[in-house]
Amino acid sequence: MKASFIIIGTELTRGIIQDSHGSLLSRELTHMGIYVSEIVEVPDDGSIEKVLEALMRNNDIVIITGGLGPTSDDMTRPVIAAAAGVPLVRSEDAWNHMLETLGERAYGPNSRQAMIPEGFSLIRNDNGTAPGFYGYGGSTLLISLPGPPREMHPMLYESVLPLLRDKLDLPQAERDEYTSFITAEAKLEELYEDADCSLDWGTRFQDYRISLYVSGKTKADRDKAIARLRDKLGEYRIVEGDADALTMAIDALRRSDSTVSVAESCTGGLLSMLLTERAGASEYMLGSVTSYAASVKADVLGVPESVIREKGTVSPECAIAMAEGVRRLTGSDYSVSVTGVAGPDEDEGKSVGTVHLGFSSARRESVAISVHFSSWGRASIRRKAAVTALLLLSAYVSGEDIGRIASGWKEI
Amino acid sequence: MKASFIIIGTELTRGIIQDSHGSLLSRELTHMGIYVSEIVEVPDDGSIEKVLEALMRNNDIVIITGGLGPTSDDMTRPVIAAAAGVPLVRSEDAWNHMLETLGERAYGPNSRQAMIPEGFSLIRNDNGTAPGFYGYGGSTLLISLPGPPREMHPMLYESVLPLLRDKLDLPQAERDEYTSFITAEAKLEELYEDADCSLDWGTRFQDYRISLYVSGKTKADRDKAIARLRDKLGEYRIVEGDADALTMAIDALRRSDSTVSVAESCTGGLLSMLLTERAGASEYMLGSVTSYAASVKADVLGVPESVIREKGTVSPECAIAMAEGVRRLTGSDYSVSVTGVAGPDEDEGKSVGTVHLGFSSARRESVAISVHFSSWGRASIRRKAAVTALLLLSAYVSGEDIGRIASGWKEI
Repeated sequence: MKASFIIIGTELTRGIIQDSHGSLLSRELTHMGIYVSEIVEVPDDGSIEKVLEALMRNNDIVIITGGLGPTSDDMTRPVIAAAAGVPLVRSEDAWNHMLETLGERAYGPNSRQAMIPEGFSLIRNDNGTAPGFYGYGGSTLLISLPGPPREMHPMLYESVLPLLRDKLDLPQAERDEYTSFITAEAKLEELYEDADCSLDWGTRFQDYRISLYVSGKTKADRDKAIARLRDKLGEYRIVEGDADALTMAIDALRRSDSTVSVAESCTGGLLSMLLTERAGASEYMLGSVTSYAASVKADVLGVPESVIREKGTVSPECAIAMAEGVRRLTGSDYSVSVTGVAGPDEDEGKSVGTVHLGFSSARRESVAISVHFSSWGRASIRRKAAVTALLLLSAYVSGEDIGRIASGWKEI
Repeated sequence: MKASFIIIGTELTRGIIQDSHGSLLSRELTHMGIYVSEIVEVPDDGSIEKVLEALMRNNDIVIITGGLGPTSDDMTRPVIAAAAGVPLVRSEDAWNHMLETLGERAYGPNSRQAMIPEGFSLIRNDNGTAPGFYGYGGSTLLISLPGPPREMHPMLYESVLPLLRDKLDLPQAERDEYTSFITAEAKLEELYEDADCSLDWGTRFQDYRISLYVSGKTKADRDKAIARLRDKLGEYRIVEGDADALTMAIDALRRSDSTVSVAESCTGGLLSMLLTERAGASEYMLGSVTSYAASVKADVLGVPESVIREKGTVSPECAIAMAEGVRRLTGSDYSVSVTGVAGPDEDEGKSVGTVHLGFSSARRESVAISVHFSSWGRASIRRKAAVTALLLLSAYVSGEDIGRIASGWKEI
């Protein structure tokens, strides 16, 4: 079984953005045992026609992304219809979907997006106006998907891969998704091969997290493998579904109708930036102090001089004093602090990767958590420290014993 | 002039790594006015033969990366020789280079790497054993480069681009680079087409800035076009060379041996995060307060209640009080503040994109700057506000009249 991909976008052939669809499609189809023979990136200039013709001669499957927009230079539809030797017809399902999402704008140039090659089937798009479609051109299965990743990704996982499994007679849709935190992708691959190498695994690196897909065998087998992986990493490092640490923290705050404030040192404002990233942040986030200089820790946050002198600014005691200080200043229900050594040089005799987090609340006792990140690089340590703070904040606000959780963490 | 690229690597079509050569080559050739018609990724399975044949029919230039290793599945050499209709011959220069770098290992399978198509010219590789080569197959210029980026990149910049300029009769190395800030890429394209459409322009979007390349005609012509562009945008928006706003701000602080502190609202910690991003940040950055809630503006930063009540938290008066407040708290030489409406909803009756910045110093009078960003989206407004703060901070610390500078800004 051979497959090729055509990735359409003038921004690709002008070098403005770098393609990632080819790589994602390759990984997923290779996992299914399909041989990927060619990935072709072309501009929006109609040259897809010649390329498609050539690929159809040598492939069982051709997947085309992009070129489904409403403007006149998006010509994927007519080219695929011509390659399949059928006319373009209006799909009533696609038209109704467009009416729902676009209202009267559906009657303009967008109406073109409801046209698909006759005899082809629709692929539902829950995140945009242009549906995908698939059908045969000769003996080649042609699959057309929109270009924007937030539309294309769910369509790939929810429709295209199940469709291909079906054509290949592979067991269907038995795929679980998890999210993994503060674990390097290479480490994760090593660990899950240990956990059960007869299962299909896949990972997708995203900002601040890694998506993890497990498929094959029975649900019980998959659960057992995930449980083994969890054992090796510890709690809160593998979470079911498509999760992210920021949402987990926000949800915990909203559930308990609480506010939070932040005191940062090595993360320098990153944690605060994340907590104010989404619209409506003022409902739970009051503010933060970045105390980069020791004097600011003392003068603004009120960290006792004795703590700084005897324990140093990179210490559990300083983390707690910072958290309590910012909560006192802002009057928030909860607070979280981060102090550590992001590098490149060690500090106060503490090695690069040492991070202490403080958690404080009027409702609970203050807790300090100490971790050591093995990852190399200042930016990576800052990112991991911020994610750890969000994960543990969500647990702390939910009333969990975060000291126990963090003490079970391995391989970070 | 049309070009295509063949990127060889089974790790690409299996989705193990993501190609970046296609994007780099596209960008550089597009800059030179060459139209990139196709980027093809293929596995190491010999299928390059068919692809090369098809691309040679429609392109003036075909660049091939990879497939030059010593193992038997690397068959780029014989395929290119066959396409050019010439035998493979041993290049004495390549052979001597291999003897120098490999010693006796040069006699094993590596010796294959000294073979190039007859009549082709060598492209020197200072970082590996396999040289590149170029020559004609029919009327198409064929250029073969090794796959590893640390070998391919210097060869591209030192040999291939000068070669192409030569073939295209472009003036050699007459390329000026500029950096543009807080201007949308589309807007920049529109403006520079106005400025002089007979010059070659190119842009590369990077985090928080756009690199701008101008080439062709005389230095005086290029300078005139840039001056016209500067007139349309205002000072500090187009800077010579590969600049970034963070480095400009840090340089100004270091030059005057000064420290800075930050008070943020809508940017939520982003500005502070940027100012602490680089190693050695503690030499100039003391700390920051993110006063997301109005109560934190009043209680922590000491913004007078009357300002909040009468002018609102999104006002020049509040920006100045925030900047002065954080400087008082931290004892820094300079301070900068940002308050505004990042959206999605308007706030206090002020529209999305309204941003006020405050600058304060013991050495100068406080200044408030008001801007309005037309860009859509919360993340984009936060980024632009942070970049504006860094640009104006560098000017303020350097003793410039930032009120005059910002009042000359158009199209932001």
